[in-house]
Amino acid sequence: MKAQLMKMLEERKEEMIKIRRFLHENPELSFKEEKTAQYIIDFYKGKDVEVKTEVGNGQGIIVTIKGGKPGKTIGLRADFDALPIVEETDLPFKSKNEGVMHACGHDAHTAYLLVLADCLIQLKESLSGTIKIIHQHAEEVPPGGAKSIVESGELNDLDNIFGIHVLPMGPAGQVGYRGGYVMAGRSFFKLGIQGTGGHGSSPHLANDAVVAGAHFVTAVQTVISRRLNPFDMGVITIGSFDGKGTFNVIRDRVELEGDIRYMTVETQKLIDEEVHRVASGIEVEFGVKCELTYTADYPPLYNDPEVTEMVKASLESMNEPEIKEVKEYPMMSSSEDFSYYAEKIPGFFFYIGCTPKGVEKPYFNHHPKFDIDEDALLVAAKSVAQVVCSYYEID
Amino acid sequence: MKAQLMKMLEERKEEMIKIRRFLHENPELSFKEEKTAQYIIDFYKGKDVEVKTEVGNGQGIIVTIKGGKPGKTIGLRADFDALPIVEETDLPFKSKNEGVMHACGHDAHTAYLLVLADCLIQLKESLSGTIKIIHQHAEEVPPGGAKSIVESGELNDLDNIFGIHVLPMGPAGQVGYRGGYVMAGRSFFKLGIQGTGGHGSSPHLANDAVVAGAHFVTAVQTVISRRLNPFDMGVITIGSFDGKGTFNVIRDRVELEGDIRYMTVETQKLIDEEVHRVASGIEVEFGVKCELTYTADYPPLYNDPEVTEMVKASLESMNEPEIKEVKEYPMMSSSEDFSYYAEKIPGFFFYIGCTPKGVEKPYFNHHPKFDIDEDALLVAAKSVAQVVCSYYEID
Amino acid sequence: MKAQLMKMLEERKEEMIKIRRFLHENPELSFKEEKTAQYIIDFYKGKDVEVKTEVGNGQGIIVTIKGGKPGKTIGLRADFDALPIVEETDLPFKSKNEGVMHACGHDAHTAYLLVLADCLIQLKESLSGTIKIIHQHAEEVPPGGAKSIVESGELNDLDNIFGIHVLPMGPAGQVGYRGGYVMAGRSFFKLGIQGTGGHGSSPHLANDAVVAGAHFVTAVQTVISRRLNPFDMGVITIGSFDGKGTFNVIRDRVELEGDIRYMTVETQKLIDEEVHRVASGIEVEFGVKCELTYTADYPPLYNDPEVTEMVKASLESMNEPEIKEVKEYPMMSSSEDFSYYAEKIPGFFFYIGCTPKGVEKPYFNHHPKFDIDEDALLVAAKSVAQVVCSYYEID
Amino acid sequence: MKAQLMKMLEERKEEMIKIRRFLHENPELSFKEEKTAQYIIDFYKGKDVEVKTEVGNGQGIIVTIKGGKPGKTIGLRADFDALPIVEETDLPFKSKNEGVMHACGHDAHTAYLLVLADCLIQLKESLSGTIKIIHQHAEEVPPGGAKSIVESGELNDLDNIFGIHVLPMGPAGQVGYRGGYVMAGRSFFKLGIQGTGGHGSSPHLANDAVVAGAHFVTAVQTVISRRLNPFDMGVITIGSFDGKGTFNVIRDRVELEGDIRYMTVETQKLIDEEVHRVASGIEVEFGVKCELTYTADYPPLYNDPEVTEMVKASLESMNEPEIKEVKEYPMMSSSEDFSYYAEKIPGFFFYIGCTPKGVEKPYFNHHPKFDIDEDALLVAAKSVAQVVCSYYEID
Repeated sequence: MKAQLMKMLEERKEEMIKIRRFLHENPELSFKEEKTAQYIIDFYKGKDVEVKTEVGNGQGIIVTIKGGKPGKTIGLRADFDALPIVEETDLPFKSKNEGVMHACGHDAHTAYLLVLADCLIQLKESLSGTIKIIHQHAEEVPPGGAKSIVESGELNDLDNIFGIHVLPMGPAGQVGYRGGYVMAGRSFFKLGIQGTGGHGSSPHLANDAVVAGAHFVTAVQTVISRRLNPFDMGVITIGSFDGKGTFNVIRDRVELEGDIRYMTVETQKLIDEEVHRVASGIEVEFGVKCELTYTADYPPLYNDPEVTEMVKASLESMNEPEIKEVKEYPMMSSSEDFSYYAEKIPGFFFYIGCTPKGVEKPYFNHHPKFDIDEDALLVAAKSVAQVVCSYYEID
Repeated sequence: MKAQLMKMLEERKEEMIKIRRFLHENPELSFKEEKTAQYIIDFYKGKDVEVKTEVGNGQGIIVTIKGGKPGKTIGLRADFDALPIVEETDLPFKSKNEGVMHACGHDAHTAYLLVLADCLIQLKESLSGTIKIIHQHAEEVPPGGAKSIVESGELNDLDNIFGIHVLPMGPAGQVGYRGGYVMAGRSFFKLGIQGTGGHGSSPHLANDAVVAGAHFVTAVQTVISRRLNPFDMGVITIGSFDGKGTFNVIRDRVELEGDIRYMTVETQKLIDEEVHRVASGIEVEFGVKCELTYTADYPPLYNDPEVTEMVKASLESMNEPEIKEVKEYPMMSSSEDFSYYAEKIPGFFFYIGCTPKGVEKPYFNHHPKFDIDEDALLVAAKSVAQVVCSYYEID
Repeated sequence: MKAQLMKMLEERKEEMIKIRRFLHENPELSFKEEKTAQYIIDFYKGKDVEVKTEVGNGQGIIVTIKGGKPGKTIGLRADFDALPIVEETDLPFKSKNEGVMHACGHDAHTAYLLVLADCLIQLKESLSGTIKIIHQHAEEVPPGGAKSIVESGELNDLDNIFGIHVLPMGPAGQVGYRGGYVMAGRSFFKLGIQGTGGHGSSPHLANDAVVAGAHFVTAVQTVISRRLNPFDMGVITIGSFDGKGTFNVIRDRVELEGDIRYMTVETQKLIDEEVHRVASGIEVEFGVKCELTYTADYPPLYNDPEVTEMVKASLESMNEPEIKEVKEYPMMSSSEDFSYYAEKIPGFFFYIGCTPKGVEKPYFNHHPKFDIDEDALLVAAKSVAQVVCSYYEID
Repeated sequence: MKAQLMKMLEERKEEMIKIRRFLHENPELSFKEEKTAQYIIDFYKGKDVEVKTEVGNGQGIIVTIKGGKPGKTIGLRADFDALPIVEETDLPFKSKNEGVMHACGHDAHTAYLLVLADCLIQLKESLSGTIKIIHQHAEEVPPGGAKSIVESGELNDLDNIFGIHVLPMGPAGQVGYRGGYVMAGRSFFKLGIQGTGGHGSSPHLANDAVVAGAHFVTAVQTVISRRLNPFDMGVITIGSFDGKGTFNVIRDRVELEGDIRYMTVETQKLIDEEVHRVASGIEVEFGVKCELTYTADYPPLYNDPEVTEMVKASLESMNEPEIKEVKEYPMMSSSEDFSYYAEKIPGFFFYIGCTPKGVEKPYFNHHPKFDIDEDALLVAAKSVAQVVCSYYEID
């Protein structure tokens, strides 16, 4: 059956490209993906599968493919939202929705998975288990769609889950993997420091929020430099220090916003605790009021080691001409809400090279000129198909 | 003649009040005082004096009263501009010019001086010397009108100069004085710190301007705490720290604005030098570019000690019922562009109490509810008249 | 009687010098002035006065001169301890007590006061009141002798108290005065910051006391730069940062020592409070333990304004050839335990110029080459005699 | 031949233990290992090998075992110096040299390698290549013996080099490995900050070195928190802040000492550059003089990836009962001068578990109670023998 599946995918390569181009031309922002969702729903119309819509806090869709025999249940996930970016490519299928762009490749994710799902539906009698296709909305905007889909309970029966991302770190044909923590978790915070305003010439009658804020920035550096295990990854960036005012008036308030990154749940907890500690210290030290709202965003994305071993072995044993290299990728400081699935369900998330042919320095995801080599669609489809076949021991 | 002058002033007290109310009702912003200037010019029409208009960089007016006999030349100065403040009083002569208000008492200064000038004109034959009445525009907005009037050369022949300010630090009847440095000098600066922007998760690829700015704020405190003679007054306020941005984007630039105060020219120079030094240090320390524009605003206001002695003795010997107390006032951290005159011409600037009757906590100058006891007009007129008489040894 | 007193003093000028040289040759450290005290006691032997010895916590001596008629009671104070300094002068009466030196002029204070006291004893029948001569031990070492003499209760009946200090800020013949706060108060503190030690390569397993200490030093600057009224004098010096260790071992503890100066009790309280606040903040911010012992040393020295007026008028009206100038002196950042008397008893402390003849840049008090013009002894005696006469309205 | 070699090692297990105990009882400090060196030289006496002594800057010994046939040349290295630690164990062969202790296991390293070398000498006719046994002095004291041995040129002909360390991270039987950067590099620095001393009450006449030093400590944190790639390991510890002084005297100088760790040469360079930059910034910012001596100590230890693959495969294929587990170890923040060899010669350094039987929380290397399971000696010998056999393709 595996050979058959691979052949079916090959034959439908053009269809994948067509779907991807359609989605690319019609991008929709996170939580506003009505037409995209409808397009997906229409795709499954008339097919012998159960389709659940509006799963989670938006347009999430779960398609359940029941195999002919009983067995394990796995999920395959692709996201379908786009970004608030003005597209700057010259593609003939450039976004028609000015200011919205599929600049992260979710169009490609959805395109390959629709076709792969359809093939699996056709072959499902030979399958000993159940495959849930997860078309996820709103990956780009925290808290994202994944969290709510997990909370919906619809995936409670999953044994494992898989997902991929197109990344221009290599050409179409390169498949990237890594075990353990692979993508950074992220928290953010807002810190309002309330002092007392006053005239620039009389600091003793005021309580200068700018000075307190500067000391917070200075002191919080030590969380990274002295509290963190030097082998652990952690970042605190104060991206916003809003203390604009008049030169001769002492600021009564400044507002800071910060971005936190980490690769493990332990580091997440440590930084959370320490940032709170520093803010409390500043309160006492300067007699100001620190209003800190601290939000854990996406958890670090953790690839289950056993699943990693299985997938790695499966990919390395693959004998398809389109797959040219299986390579260990480094950890990444960016974040991805697939981590919410992987928190609950042993999972694996991996990367599909997509650097356009002949390009040396490709534009990366989220760039207004981001583009992919569409050969990556078939690579994605075959790689995931390979994993599914290995998983169910299908030859 | 002194008795005669005092009597004339007493008789014209109501006229002073009328003038003051007219000016109060018709305030004009600094450098835009066309109508006020015309009002003053009209006042002198037909009087036997030389009137120079448009002196300096605006509507400055100098009225020269030549005495019957030769002698020293002095200046009497009053300012006439108003502030961009929405008046919140219930006065029947409240500002008709919405958003502009005589909230600093310059209306009172001009009112008393017009009447005093007129009296002196009438008595000028008895005078052994020359009095220049200086109606000054634009005191409120640095670099102010005083600097340009000094630079015009029109005051080059002055031996001494005098001015007053109404202040609600005591009731009408109280006259405040102090010798030496009496009001603070002021400088201001803008500091642009240019680093390199980047993604919040990758500090090493960027150069965070917020962190460099915070270290500047922290380090510049030591100029006051360690470089300044502890007996000297000095303030550095960073009134603006403009680093608003997005939490997960490293700021490439922050812009700070600062206010500097000092009571002596030595402290002015010291702080100037040290702030430049700290900024240069931050440049090296953080590899950023510091663009510092540093501007000396108003010098500290210095009352000549000899003139102070003369005026003090004169005021203390005055025997007018309206003057109830002559009191040493503390140094003040606010600034006044009379300092430009006093830099070049030995001068004396003093204070006329004006707390409204029955008010315990008066609104201070620049407050939208600022008001004066109009009895202060006659106190001002008589005090300055007394100084003039003492100066020319008129009994 | 005043003329008689002045004449007596003139005639005993050489005796003052002799006494001063004897004391200079035989200096004793604070709290160890047994021989000096005995010398003073011997001086009063056989004279018709009450002599109390061992007053306070050391060798304090109070000599009570009861006048012939009742009246007010005043104190005249001179200190008599020396300093742990190796004298570097070439004086024939150089210290015989190696390592101890009258480098602050207390020898001169005691010399003039002994002679003046003797003269007053001889004239006491003409006096309407009581004069207590206070020979004070241990001025140089906090908490000093003054505090304990005040606490002894022996001065409870004083109406006023007077003291002088020789200072080489002017020649012998110059008398310096100032009203209100004249010399700085002083506090000191010890701050132990306890973190957790560890290996230099593993900051996360330790808690670095050096970093916490550095942040304390940085933050405490803002007490001076932002909490203090810019017109008020205040200093915080961290004179000791004891964090010596091994380069690759994280310090578990650092110990800081600080010196605080101020001119008013209000500033004393403010800084005390704020340093405690900063230390508490550091505790929270860095999770260390801050052990702060904070001790108020000498209060600021306050010359009572009324007494100041009286003394100033008295000195200015003096007509003695040795007194050439009476001059207002600036505030000083050094400290003096006369402040303990002045806290309880309206008092006045003033300065006697003593720059050696022909010297342009004299060595100041506490320098190993400090020396005085011995003409200052008679100036001191006559000045204080003048104040006593004015006080008791003696012509 | 491999089986024969393994058998020979098994038979001489007791001899290894005997040698180790003798060395343990007779430890010598780095650069003072005369007797230990002589012991080693004596061991080789009469054997058919070339022995070079006093190689490098101390007691280094190189023993060249020429095989029967030509082939590649490799080095096997063991260090033999001890530490200045008072041993606190109860071992019957406890150190007889009070204050010196083999607390790092170099006794074990030397013991296994002597026996292994002897076996290889006996079998050398079957060997196609040359093996250099490197008995290294002075590993514990930077710059260590390795650097000088490399510089001697004696190893210029090496193709590869191997070494091991006993570590109580697992039981005897566990062999730990890791590729790439495995142990931290280290630099240290001394920073003298020269300001100007003065009296605590007059900061403006001095230039406070404590304040400048505190700002250095504060600012240098940003090198780790903002300049370093968050995925890279880097530490800056200021282990010594020597600013002890008198509370009321402003320090003219402080001396800091710092410890730097990193896992890559790139990070080493980056931190070096940035610490210099911060020090230069402090100089300008505070007008002090910064005297910075910055010394690179041990480089990060880099295991060549190809050699790693070879060794890993070799160890994993080993079929000896004493070797129970081959495990990937984490990177370590400690340092090892084997890195000097590995800088020049592709090498591999790995770990031999040695936790004493029945102990759950073993004392680590450098602890006064450090001890090993002596079974680890045979594990070490067999593991290295296995690598040698694989290297020369000996069955």
